[in-house]
Amino acid sequence: MHNDSNSGAPGTPSGRIRRRRGSNEVAPEVVKANGNHLLVNDRSKYKSMLIRAYSSVWMIGGFAFIIYMGHLYIWAMVVVIQIFMAKELFNLLRRAHEDRHLPGFRLLNWHFFFTAMLFVYGRMLSQRLVNTVTLDKFLYKLVGRFVKYHMVTCYFFYIAGFMWFILTLKKKMYKYQFSQYAWTHMILIVVFTQSAFTVANIFEGIFWFLLPASLIVINDIAAYFFGFFFGRTPLIKLSPKKTWEGFIGASITTIISAFLLANMFGRFQWLTCPRKDLSTGWLDCDPGPLFKPEYFTLPEWFPAWFLSREIAVLPVQWHALLLGLFASIIAPFGGFFASGFKRAFKIKDFGDSIPGHGGMTDRMDCQMVMAVFAYIYHQSFIVPQNLSIEMILDQIILNLTFEEQLAVYKKLGQIIQERTFGES
Amino acid sequence: MHNDSNSGAPGTPSGRIRRRRGSNEVAPEVVKANGNHLLVNDRSKYKSMLIRAYSSVWMIGGFAFIIYMGHLYIWAMVVVIQIFMAKELFNLLRRAHEDRHLPGFRLLNWHFFFTAMLFVYGRMLSQRLVNTVTLDKFLYKLVGRFVKYHMVTCYFFYIAGFMWFILTLKKKMYKYQFSQYAWTHMILIVVFTQSAFTVANIFEGIFWFLLPASLIVINDIAAYFFGFFFGRTPLIKLSPKKTWEGFIGASITTIISAFLLANMFGRFQWLTCPRKDLSTGWLDCDPGPLFKPEYFTLPEWFPAWFLSREIAVLPVQWHALLLGLFASIIAPFGGFFASGFKRAFKIKDFGDSIPGHGGMTDRMDCQMVMAVFAYIYHQSFIVPQNLSIEMILDQIILNLTFEEQLAVYKKLGQIIQERTFGES
Repeated sequence: MHNDSNSGAPGTPSGRIRRRRGSNEVAPEVVKANGNHLLVNDRSKYKSMLIRAYSSVWMIGGFAFIIYMGHLYIWAMVVVIQIFMAKELFNLLRRAHEDRHLPGFRLLNWHFFFTAMLFVYGRMLSQRLVNTVTLDKFLYKLVGRFVKYHMVTCYFFYIAGFMWFILTLKKKMYKYQFSQYAWTHMILIVVFTQSAFTVANIFEGIFWFLLPASLIVINDIAAYFFGFFFGRTPLIKLSPKKTWEGFIGASITTIISAFLLANMFGRFQWLTCPRKDLSTGWLDCDPGPLFKPEYFTLPEWFPAWFLSREIAVLPVQWHALLLGLFASIIAPFGGFFASGFKRAFKIKDFGDSIPGHGGMTDRMDCQMVMAVFAYIYHQSFIVPQNLSIEMILDQIILNLTFEEQLAVYKKLGQIIQERTFGES
Repeated sequence: MHNDSNSGAPGTPSGRIRRRRGSNEVAPEVVKANGNHLLVNDRSKYKSMLIRAYSSVWMIGGFAFIIYMGHLYIWAMVVVIQIFMAKELFNLLRRAHEDRHLPGFRLLNWHFFFTAMLFVYGRMLSQRLVNTVTLDKFLYKLVGRFVKYHMVTCYFFYIAGFMWFILTLKKKMYKYQFSQYAWTHMILIVVFTQSAFTVANIFEGIFWFLLPASLIVINDIAAYFFGFFFGRTPLIKLSPKKTWEGFIGASITTIISAFLLANMFGRFQWLTCPRKDLSTGWLDCDPGPLFKPEYFTLPEWFPAWFLSREIAVLPVQWHALLLGLFASIIAPFGGFFASGFKRAFKIKDFGDSIPGHGGMTDRMDCQMVMAVFAYIYHQSFIVPQNLSIEMILDQIILNLTFEEQLAVYKKLGQIIQERTFGES
């Protein structure tokens, strides 16, 4: 099945930091343990590398185009990736023999998938819809009502699936069905946590999606090449092809790239402005102090060939360093986890969606860990100053009637007055 | 192990609606399928019923006392139940042989448990702490800071556990370890979703916790007795001891009880007032229109022995009917799910914490489904009118500095002014 997709290309999947090909330091038992014979299939190794490079170029090109198109298109891309991942993972522990006796059982997975979709995206979408145009009162109320009953709607979809599951339980299939139920939930939680955070990042400003995602790609590629040319010392038993040399080289590359990329990305309003509606028009905002360059004069002893005595640093670049650190040290654990998982269940790849790369999930393992971190970092250390005011105002405008808004206004006035008197 | 806890008492666990003991309608294959011989061990059946009744009385008494003590004590009870459930479920798929080779692997479960605890309760606790007393500025800031970095703190605890897991993966144990990891996550999600909603209900007013919980208990007991005395027609293959007679009888009992209990509970401010702080003092509030009695005059033809021509109905009683309907129709599916699960994994009870009842989890299956529903129902159909104003004010006071509060006040004033001009 899909597990054989890369059969002609040993050593391609999952390994991010590769052991130097043909190096003397390759411990034979490691090679054996992996079941691949790195030393033998040299030609197919190169062929696979070409396929991989070719589809990488296509992916990066397509990705850049989507970034250029804007927030809604990126969101659509995330949803497509999500569907692919869910499909790959749903199929993973599926057993055709059992399924033949359980008509409609597959459909239940997708019922839960769309319930999760409604739950995660329904609210986001309607909040942005309200901001999109000066809605007429009817539509405004309609969206408002949807938001109000959003949770209960999702709950009933879920309960319907839950009852469907119980009513279609079949004798002798219990264990398979319960395992599948748990597995479906695990998949949906992993896939939707990650993508909900990713989409949230996108609308905070493409910057907060693009920088973390790029850092993971850079870290992957750098680890591949550093490992290819210098890899000697094995890093972790879980992924025998990863080496300390690859890991360290990639870390340094990633952290430097983070600093430079942040400076580059931080200069485009298209990337730095948050998007509060669903339009795709041009963005114009005050990107705030984080993206205002600060000028540093270089010391005298700095080499004269350097372009300028003065360099401009955006404050966001310091934050980028931390993102780079995370992308190179912690995020790879997402990859280790995926490798371990594949070993545990004796599969080679999660799927065969991308030629030379394996499944979509194989390329997303670290991205997931990173997107969640980027979101939480942004919310904890970047947002609080100015944006939370707007978030609260959004809430007030969206969830309350005019009379209730007035009530909030009056009460807040009272509280502020009390405080002012208390302080003076 | 714990599965044998009830070995002297066949037929006790999990079955909520019991097939009539010794009735001619007992289909022999059902009895066999269940592995118990209902017809044989009559004496032990009665003994088990006594044990069960005895511990039920203790439980209900203890429960009433805790309700009397107040919100904090109920919360503590929920946490204790939670710990018991997690313990039972963690042990369920545990294999002693594998564990011997994985020192410290059990500890990881509890690491995740306490991370989830911090995540779910940390925010609740600190929000209520701020409301508790007029805090001095230092403490106020401290709690504020904790709330601000709450998410990132939890994230790092989680990531630490994630890395711990990956770094302690042992060859040949991968499959066991990954299954345990997934299992731990499923448990924590189920246990914490339920208890987070339960605790939220408690602080919205004990009413919203007590009524749903009572309805489940009443439904359980009524189904037991209706099944015991009238049970003939099997209800669902999953739980052979449940009958249609038990199900229907229990439903009617539960819906009537819901209507009556709501009238009873709705008259105590101790139960109806929300609690916004962590004190245990007396509550005094305007419980709102839901709890203000409306008077209906009974029609002439109504029997004269009825106490009064006029009856007082609290509007909340109509909502209670819906809760009763849910408790008797949908919530039992929680029990079916648990029965199916136990059959799938060939276990009898989830544990042996409560004499005669099996494990804590065995008594909580329907409670979980109910608590989530009660919360979502309350949020969707009860709260929106008045409480959301206070929620937003809470947010403003807790999350924003004084200057930011001023900024919200000013902007809100502008928005309201624009609206007023736009409308006039």
